Amino acid sequence: MHTTQPIEWTPEGVRMLDQRRLPAEVVYITYTDYVGIAAGIRDMVIRGAPAIGVAAAMGVAIGVERSAAKSLDELRAEFPRICDTIARTRPTAMDLFWALERMKQRFAAATSDSNDSLAPIRAAMIAEAQQVHLEKKAIDEAIGRFGAELMPREGRVMTQCNAGALATAGIGTALGVIRVAVEQGCKLTVLVPETRPYLQGARLTAWELQQDGIPLTLITDNMVGHILKTKQVGAIVVGADRIAANGDTANKIGTYQIAVLANEHKVPFYVAAPISTLDLSIPGGEHIPIEERSPEEVTHIQGVRIAPDVSVANPAFDVTPARLVTAIITERGVARAPYTDSLRRLADSSATALS
Amino acid sequence: MHTTQPIEWTPEGVRMLDQRRLPAEVVYITYTDYVGIAAGIRDMVIRGAPAIGVAAAMGVAIGVERSAAKSLDELRAEFPRICDTIARTRPTAMDLFWALERMKQRFAAATSDSNDSLAPIRAAMIAEAQQVHLEKKAIDEAIGRFGAELMPREGRVMTQCNAGALATAGIGTALGVIRVAVEQGCKLTVLVPETRPYLQGARLTAWELQQDGIPLTLITDNMVGHILKTKQVGAIVVGADRIAANGDTANKIGTYQIAVLANEHKVPFYVAAPISTLDLSIPGGEHIPIEERSPEEVTHIQGVRIAPDVSVANPAFDVTPARLVTAIITERGVARAPYTDSLRRLADSSATALS
Repeated sequence: MHTTQPIEWTPEGVRMLDQRRLPAEVVYITYTDYVGIAAGIRDMVIRGAPAIGVAAAMGVAIGVERSAAKSLDELRAEFPRICDTIARTRPTAMDLFWALERMKQRFAAATSDSNDSLAPIRAAMIAEAQQVHLEKKAIDEAIGRFGAELMPREGRVMTQCNAGALATAGIGTALGVIRVAVEQGCKLTVLVPETRPYLQGARLTAWELQQDGIPLTLITDNMVGHILKTKQVGAIVVGADRIAANGDTANKIGTYQIAVLANEHKVPFYVAAPISTLDLSIPGGEHIPIEERSPEEVTHIQGVRIAPDVSVANPAFDVTPARLVTAIITERGVARAPYTDSLRRLADSSATALS
Repeated sequence: MHTTQPIEWTPEGVRMLDQRRLPAEVVYITYTDYVGIAAGIRDMVIRGAPAIGVAAAMGVAIGVERSAAKSLDELRAEFPRICDTIARTRPTAMDLFWALERMKQRFAAATSDSNDSLAPIRAAMIAEAQQVHLEKKAIDEAIGRFGAELMPREGRVMTQCNAGALATAGIGTALGVIRVAVEQGCKLTVLVPETRPYLQGARLTAWELQQDGIPLTLITDNMVGHILKTKQVGAIVVGADRIAANGDTANKIGTYQIAVLANEHKVPFYVAAPISTLDLSIPGGEHIPIEERSPEEVTHIQGVRIAPDVSVANPAFDVTPARLVTAIITERGVARAPYTDSLRRLADSSATALS
């Protein structure tokens, strides 16, 4: 399956598709240092929890690769600064912290093996970041296969925001499920809420689906209830930024109300996300920090002011309680309520179930 | 109470505030014939059901005033064309048809009195249109007084779209309720969903409240659920474009899902609308025609393309079932379930209860 690549490791540096400029322009930016990658994550050149994880891993790798450190001690001293800079970008995305932790562990192992030679450490970090990327792609394919079985054979499905290739650096989580279902012969039309304020649905999901030739209908976020009431919709599938131990799911703002509306209209509501999105350290969604973004995202669209200069709320995410989630689709299988048990079992199960 | 006037009868013609250009520019257009007024309604220079009613009445009046007819027979022949042109603009707004019916009745009475002199007919039609406007203002004040008693003494309230002065040519219906409550000393902050695609919340309601110095917080339409879940909201009050005999309410797209979310969070959900919005000829909301507007309203914002060229749905209204409506606030009092009884009683009661 051909899909757009939002991030690639290249000899010149880390190449990202600038998602802020889609769909008007397809522009790539090549970052040659970790500070640039941190800025790229923060400024949403790349977004989507799994893709942020890949970017974070590559950011650490390029930070080590291009470090001016002359000795292992100098590199060890610099390393936390690299990780901290990348950590202080998007607070909600679990994958960001998961990727940083993984790169820290690899760094610890590589440096403990090393006899003050930096070259093997640099090579190990680059290889690890590329491995993270490859694993993300395999994970998406597995999520897609498990999720496709839950899609209707034909008819309408709905998603939210962009949990596609642009968000994951694979085939996507929610859109991966839809892509595999379509590949397997399901005749689906995708309802795409535009997802204000950042318009990931209108700009990214609509663009991705159009590129793939999958039929879609773009709607505004306030049409969801009306559509579910007046049209047959077979399933809703969304991504996740973080999932608590009890199944409470943080995802793009608007997801919670879509889940309430799905429940009201008896439409199955699925979350598709990698195991790395699970945060078993927190019992419930009330512990997930919610990023508040700048008012200008609401008062301006593409630089054009649409509202007077007034007070604005701009929470980037919300939390959907587990009771509204029909199932959580992971690369290791499908979890259903009670999630505290089912998610724990999946988390404990061997990743080799993937193959 | 000083509020913006979206429409005025002037010696030069009918002066409208061009709501399409708010909040960036405050521009007035003076229409000197009924064809222009019909275009103004259709193109949303003026919008909001009650204001459309006033515009329709003034449109008929100016059509008669400026008619080239030389005799009563010629005027009688032209009159249906004037009314039909104005009728074929916005199909959902009940007030449009109510105002046309009233002007038709006045025309019938005036022409039956007349001895082929056109001047008194012209004067009668102008007076009737101005009377419609004055009545709308009185109606808003009465709705405001009844509704203010249902508002919290302090805290957050929410509205949707613009059911304000700009929508009614008075103090507004939903915003009239909030204005009177604030005047009476309630300390309210108004949550204003931006109301895509046309952004009446961001452009008009935020502007009106800012002009009046009433505190507000602008949100995107997909934040409603999250806000209701995480913040205390005391009441939601919206306008209506048409109310069926059983209380089912057509209003701006997004209203239905706000009502579902209000019900989920046990927040009272009020509809504020004049009796003229009632359509007792239809038993339930399934008979209300829903206007589908152009895809460009979704794919472009203020002329800037925000989505690729894909299929779009753009229903301008939705229907909220009566079971989700806590009460309907009219100028004759507050109706509660069962609405088939309470609305019929209010419709049958004398309009003099207004005074």
